[in-house]
Amino acid sequence: MQTVRSVTIVGVGLIGGSIGLALRKRGLVDRVVGFGSRPATLELAKKVGAISEIASDERAAVAGVDLVVVCAPVAHIVEQVKRLAPLCRPGTLITDAGSTKLEIVEALASAAAGNSWPAGVRFIGSHPLAGNEKKGPGHADADLLVERTVVVTPASSSLAEDVRAISQFWQSLGARVVEMTAADHDLAVAATSHLPHLAASAIAGSTPKEFVALTASGWQDTTRIAAGDPLLWRQIMLANRENLLAALARFEGALAEWREALESQDAAALERLLADAKRIRDAAAQ
Amino acid sequence: MQTVRSVTIVGVGLIGGSIGLALRKRGLVDRVVGFGSRPATLELAKKVGAISEIASDERAAVAGVDLVVVCAPVAHIVEQVKRLAPLCRPGTLITDAGSTKLEIVEALASAAAGNSWPAGVRFIGSHPLAGNEKKGPGHADADLLVERTVVVTPASSSLAEDVRAISQFWQSLGARVVEMTAADHDLAVAATSHLPHLAASAIAGSTPKEFVALTASGWQDTTRIAAGDPLLWRQIMLANRENLLAALARFEGALAEWREALESQDAAALERLLADAKRIRDAAAQ
Repeated sequence: MQTVRSVTIVGVGLIGGSIGLALRKRGLVDRVVGFGSRPATLELAKKVGAISEIASDERAAVAGVDLVVVCAPVAHIVEQVKRLAPLCRPGTLITDAGSTKLEIVEALASAAAGNSWPAGVRFIGSHPLAGNEKKGPGHADADLLVERTVVVTPASSSLAEDVRAISQFWQSLGARVVEMTAADHDLAVAATSHLPHLAASAIAGSTPKEFVALTASGWQDTTRIAAGDPLLWRQIMLANRENLLAALARFEGALAEWREALESQDAAALERLLADAKRIRDAAAQ
Repeated sequence: MQTVRSVTIVGVGLIGGSIGLALRKRGLVDRVVGFGSRPATLELAKKVGAISEIASDERAAVAGVDLVVVCAPVAHIVEQVKRLAPLCRPGTLITDAGSTKLEIVEALASAAAGNSWPAGVRFIGSHPLAGNEKKGPGHADADLLVERTVVVTPASSSLAEDVRAISQFWQSLGARVVEMTAADHDLAVAATSHLPHLAASAIAGSTPKEFVALTASGWQDTTRIAAGDPLLWRQIMLANRENLLAALARFEGALAEWREALESQDAAALERLLADAKRIRDAAAQ
């Protein structure tokens, strides 16, 4: 890939819109092409300055660009890349922003090996650990990725130069890049993202309606991510089902220890559980 | 009780310090007397303006004041009030800021009935639903209670005029007051505060160390309250043990539904669970 001067963003929501805004505010590229299924979203993305032009169809979307970033919901990424890759000019790199990686990276390694992609058109998976419970380009933030981590997940067949180019792209937006296999990524985020989402949702969902008026900042913080989009999260959880079930089992095991400490009124055990959790939380505080 | 012109705060940490700062910044009283076990904390509270004077002993702490607010850890509140009440001048009201209420309110109703308290010295329990994971008067905030809820929990023997006086005190600091029995309070906060704390701690505590570097805002929000003081939270959880165990059982039942949906790859059930949680979270958003 040559120096990136033009980027197509497929899916201009919070993440895609923020990437476009960062590219344009930092003056990194000449063109940011937006493509997606909802005209109103594309218009809003253009209005807030996240994209410089709207593509009317798939061919126009990737015509002459150096890099395509697919920010679609995880269940649609493989299909989107499969449709767009054959239309790209030789040398165009493609990446994504999906929250799960193994299914996507494996499916697209197979697709790329099928020889229907032009020379040098290759996919490298990415996952920006950013975003929040908000949706849409109206919440786009040029600094969303600043000092955030982006995980880049090469396949075994990936070329080092492609991994470097994709890493440099994310770094140019202010992010830190961590490289790992798609399998390791999915294992880790099951514990750090998908289980917390499930637990936050289960806390919110099991709070009796008549007590909701007595919630305060603790409940608000703990359940914040439960406000995320149910459709997107259903896809993420199912795409990482095995790892999430393992993380859930570990969590249920942890809860059993808390139950035991409470049932036996074991103050020392309870304080140890609280202190262990505090130590991990304090060390991870950002 | 006459109009409150002087207040003693026992325990000048985040909550006690914030109450003192609010009283003084709003010009509501002439004196805010600080009392506690740690001279350095009292000095800091005075330095930041949370108290106007430091009492050297229990007798001096309550001499001539209209209201005593005990902001000690829950396990020490009953003992503190029992020691201070007999030293108060007739008519002094006493309240607290403890996160659990039934044990405290029952123990102090018995103590008051023992006839060793001067005439008109009475205790009404309170719980300000405010505070965060921070500690100490250095984090005191005059607006900590503004638009926050304070639960006031009269005993069956409490006088309406005392409940009104205590409610007006909290309202004068900008808080909304909700009145309920101590038993109802403890049942509700088990679900809205103590279970979320337990779950947040269990998430933090069961996150494998090697994955902590991949935590992002979702994990950070969900586990924030796990940074709270282990000793204070051990006391709170043990004081509200039965209700917390019931809330934990309800939570474990909810998790079993999530497990079932994931194991059976039931996308519709998973999306329904996510949507139910989002609806409750959105309705409670502050």
